[in-house]
Amino acid sequence: MRPSSDRLAAQLDFVLEIDKLKHVLRRTELLDQSRRENSAEHSWHLAAMAMLLQEYAPGPVDLERVLRMIVVHDIVEIDAGDTYCYDEAGNEDKLQREQQAAERLFNLLPEDLAGELRTLWEEFDSRSSNDARYAAAMDRLQPLLHNYFNDGGTWLENDISREQVIDRCQSIGEGAPLLWEYALTLIDDATERGLLYSSAGATSRRAG
Amino acid sequence: MRPSSDRLAAQLDFVLEIDKLKHVLRRTELLDQSRRENSAEHSWHLAAMAMLLQEYAPGPVDLERVLRMIVVHDIVEIDAGDTYCYDEAGNEDKLQREQQAAERLFNLLPEDLAGELRTLWEEFDSRSSNDARYAAAMDRLQPLLHNYFNDGGTWLENDISREQVIDRCQSIGEGAPLLWEYALTLIDDATERGLLYSSAGATSRRAG
Repeated sequence: MRPSSDRLAAQLDFVLEIDKLKHVLRRTELLDQSRRENSAEHSWHLAAMAMLLQEYAPGPVDLERVLRMIVVHDIVEIDAGDTYCYDEAGNEDKLQREQQAAERLFNLLPEDLAGELRTLWEEFDSRSSNDARYAAAMDRLQPLLHNYFNDGGTWLENDISREQVIDRCQSIGEGAPLLWEYALTLIDDATERGLLYSSAGATSRRAG
Repeated sequence: MRPSSDRLAAQLDFVLEIDKLKHVLRRTELLDQSRRENSAEHSWHLAAMAMLLQEYAPGPVDLERVLRMIVVHDIVEIDAGDTYCYDEAGNEDKLQREQQAAERLFNLLPEDLAGELRTLWEEFDSRSSNDARYAAAMDRLQPLLHNYFNDGGTWLENDISREQVIDRCQSIGEGAPLLWEYALTLIDDATERGLLYSSAGATSRRAG
């Protein structure tokens, strides 16, 4: 049964299409390590974090815009897949794959909504506003917490270094400086415990 | 590593605790019928719908409040479990189980945030505002869409009648009248195709 309105039909096509985000598996595991997290439940988790940690943004943020960006930020993965942040080869063509995905997916919607979602996604991705920097800080902090509290989790599995995590996550400092300070204490502790190796230090597993 | 601030420690305890919502399985299946949906990814899906279908609310809604309610609305299920909406026995003590869950879960947070989340959850649950009625309409519409497009899905499995679905879902009419009109055409079609039986009509499987 199609709705009689083309506009509603397009909106519902998109609503049904994005169900597929629940099948996109990220590298990160849930906190009981029973399985990998999918991008839909991950997006919900970030939305909850954004509601609760707003006071750590360096200035006022528009929570509505932050939540909308978070809801939208991974939808392109339905076509482009989740690219592991430390996968250099995968990240080479990530932009192109995601642009193609955005083109197909958002254009299922009526033009006004397609434009709105695409703008939100691009703003998130480029971290070009306070709202986007805060939203993106949640997106970096959450897997860091999971890996730390999973005793190294995918850091250990993939032989990730302290320097890689700092390089990847330091933008938390732009969106939530105090949370980045705390994250650094976790990275230090993880390095000390051998959950991350330091390419510079004595705890290096590769150099060791 | 605990943060030096008790406030941040409490916020992060809650952030880590709610990861468990990803393990709470609802009755509804994903649209490829590969598995049941969990309450975290379901909440994300409702948030996306709320962003896209706002024009069907009967009056202006505050999307930020709608999104916050949706993010929070199922968190009590971490302790109380998902209660199938057509399970009469389960619904008898649902309120009490969920109140206890709210007490434990929200109180992991600092007092101000605990109060904020509890108020949002209660508002959603009682549908006591336009925002809540619109948010709740998304929560009724999404599983209806899944069951319809899954050729009867859990309606068929659980021998659900047209009258039960109408009774359960008619509140969509309060939060999004035009979407309820469309939903009724789906319910009619489902009844005609035998995906729902009608306790009043000739398509009844029980009476048949």
